[in-house]
Amino acid sequence: MKACGVVVEYNPFHNGHAYHVQKAKEVSQAESVIAVMSGNFLQRGEPAIIDKFDRTRAALSSGVDIVLELPYAYAVQNSDYFARGAVQLLYALGASSICFGSEAGNAEPFISANLVQKERKKEYEIELKARLHQGLSFPEASMKAYEAIGLVNKQFDLSQPNNILGMGYVNTILEQDLPMDIHTIKRLNNEFHDPDITGKIASATSIRKEIIAHQSVTSQARAALPAITAEMLQQYKQTTSLWHHWEHYFQLVNYRVQTMTPQELRQIHGVTEGIEYRLKNTANQVENMEDWFRKIKTKRYTWTRIQRIFTHLLTNTTKDELVPFLAENSELPYVRVLGITEQGQKYLNHVKKAIKIPVLSSYRKNMHPLMQLEEKASLSYYSILKPSTRKMLFKQELKGPIRIVR
Amino acid sequence: MKACGVVVEYNPFHNGHAYHVQKAKEVSQAESVIAVMSGNFLQRGEPAIIDKFDRTRAALSSGVDIVLELPYAYAVQNSDYFARGAVQLLYALGASSICFGSEAGNAEPFISANLVQKERKKEYEIELKARLHQGLSFPEASMKAYEAIGLVNKQFDLSQPNNILGMGYVNTILEQDLPMDIHTIKRLNNEFHDPDITGKIASATSIRKEIIAHQSVTSQARAALPAITAEMLQQYKQTTSLWHHWEHYFQLVNYRVQTMTPQELRQIHGVTEGIEYRLKNTANQVENMEDWFRKIKTKRYTWTRIQRIFTHLLTNTTKDELVPFLAENSELPYVRVLGITEQGQKYLNHVKKAIKIPVLSSYRKNMHPLMQLEEKASLSYYSILKPSTRKMLFKQELKGPIRIVR
Repeated sequence: MKACGVVVEYNPFHNGHAYHVQKAKEVSQAESVIAVMSGNFLQRGEPAIIDKFDRTRAALSSGVDIVLELPYAYAVQNSDYFARGAVQLLYALGASSICFGSEAGNAEPFISANLVQKERKKEYEIELKARLHQGLSFPEASMKAYEAIGLVNKQFDLSQPNNILGMGYVNTILEQDLPMDIHTIKRLNNEFHDPDITGKIASATSIRKEIIAHQSVTSQARAALPAITAEMLQQYKQTTSLWHHWEHYFQLVNYRVQTMTPQELRQIHGVTEGIEYRLKNTANQVENMEDWFRKIKTKRYTWTRIQRIFTHLLTNTTKDELVPFLAENSELPYVRVLGITEQGQKYLNHVKKAIKIPVLSSYRKNMHPLMQLEEKASLSYYSILKPSTRKMLFKQELKGPIRIVR
Repeated sequence: MKACGVVVEYNPFHNGHAYHVQKAKEVSQAESVIAVMSGNFLQRGEPAIIDKFDRTRAALSSGVDIVLELPYAYAVQNSDYFARGAVQLLYALGASSICFGSEAGNAEPFISANLVQKERKKEYEIELKARLHQGLSFPEASMKAYEAIGLVNKQFDLSQPNNILGMGYVNTILEQDLPMDIHTIKRLNNEFHDPDITGKIASATSIRKEIIAHQSVTSQARAALPAITAEMLQQYKQTTSLWHHWEHYFQLVNYRVQTMTPQELRQIHGVTEGIEYRLKNTANQVENMEDWFRKIKTKRYTWTRIQRIFTHLLTNTTKDELVPFLAENSELPYVRVLGITEQGQKYLNHVKKAIKIPVLSSYRKNMHPLMQLEEKASLSYYSILKPSTRKMLFKQELKGPIRIVR
């Protein structure tokens, strides 16, 4: 029995994701697909449009067999930490392969790039340092450094978002020498950040934009989604009266920053280099999040990095709490299963004895510091809802995994 | 030129307050009345119904000549700290007398009570300790201890709220040997906490209740208020669309508690004896502040004490920030004038040279840690308003004092 791993956010689960899952089974010849999914906050420092539970329901109904939660500590991070956390989870559950979408569409350039990186690490680091020193943001500096050591070319563009993430998976697998086959499939048309829906395959960004602008799952959005996702989206909004986005959190985050001292701000993960003063000085000047992101943004700070800082502010995640999990030798303390199908359960029963860390099916109070971060993230995410709704939705954390019979 | 001091909250300024100011001038034979007023949060741990600026306008129009801000650090405190801070401010501005309303209506029992307290201090403390040990709240324990040393009797009931505050003023004056005459006037009918308005003289509690229940300054409320107060109340609501009360802050405080660790909660002023765990455990159970106060309440914790804790949570006021100002030898770093009439200005010019601490007419950034607490209190108070409104109202902190020509 074999499982292939995929690393996802499903914000929301769309036709492109369904294609990815199906292709993953094909190329890996595995019976099961395990998806490691970000929870309520995403890699780019944003709240997910609907919560992780409904996103899990859509995924299980659409071909995924097991959904694992990528802990907050790894999810709301740059691509290196994100990829490392996700791959380690897949390895812990015995996945024999990984399959990711990429602009390259071929595993070979990732593997050679990893070799080049290893051979020319020193050179890369010198180039990187020099670019950072010039005031470039990390992704830009890293790009230029890759260029300098010959890693970026027409065949393999390491500035494209899915190639960057793919590189992260491949680096983890090769550096930690994990027994996982590497598959990648070419992303279908419509780019990652393309803002418009153009057919059955559309980016999650364009779908969210469409849904939030119209406050409705329009026929155009529907065309790009499995029916179950449309249903989950509508059901979530019926329950909560909203689809989450940053603007809902403006009052809370703004209040937080206004009542924190610069010293307290500096304890929040990601707040460095005097950004605490920029946060304080702008707090009473801005009227919404978009405006605030724009005011904080500099050449050095990417939009994504700023959004991540605001996420850690919202969830009150401190450096002290998070940094221990980012150490290279840090090990995963547990795996949390958000949802599972019958097929997924068969696989899990089969590999159970070989799994070395606890497999949890729900949130457990005081279980582990990593889980405390999950609790804060979940409570923050729901904090904008009516108390009764919030309480009801949070209860899902305490129940066993979601089970779907397909 | 003489000034008589009064210690007030004016929440809101009503006919009883106008009577008090007039009587203060009469009994003290002073030309000016200086009111030391709580800012946006009050002694009982509540947000004021309208902000300190509009309350200052009403007071200046109704007989008060100078309004000083009682700093947050002293205002949201038990009667001892509250009274000490207020009397020190009056002394700093050279007030030659104080005049407070009391149930006793006669200064003599306060002065004898102070003597008895001094003589029987040890005995009192033993009695107090024993009662606290039994699990009584501080006010109850203190009451019983006063009874035990013979300080409570039919002529002088130290369980009545205005007598308690009066005792605080008298103790400060006598213990610090301040050159201030002590006057007290008997409170008119209608008790401090009486919930119903019964005529021209009504308690602030009953007036707020009436206004908030009807969301309107009803004719019954109007009967108990000077016209200027009714105007300020209406104007404030036109600007902000609300009159402040605790329920408006539920989402913010609840979010705060849910995202704080018990260790972080313990740093907040007033959070002791494991109340951090009660806060955490109830946070996801409650749907409004009233409900939450009730769930936190125990025999040992009075409603007021709980409200103060929630105020410090809302304003993010830590023990480290506040405790230095409560030390017996701590001195006032400045006096802040919220508003002044021409008569008040004449008085101020007259005594200016004798004033030993800076007299400020507006908020100054980074001026003093005491003022940083004021900033947080002000920002928290306004945090429930629309960003543009909040910004506009906060700007008043930066302008000179309010000036009213009567």
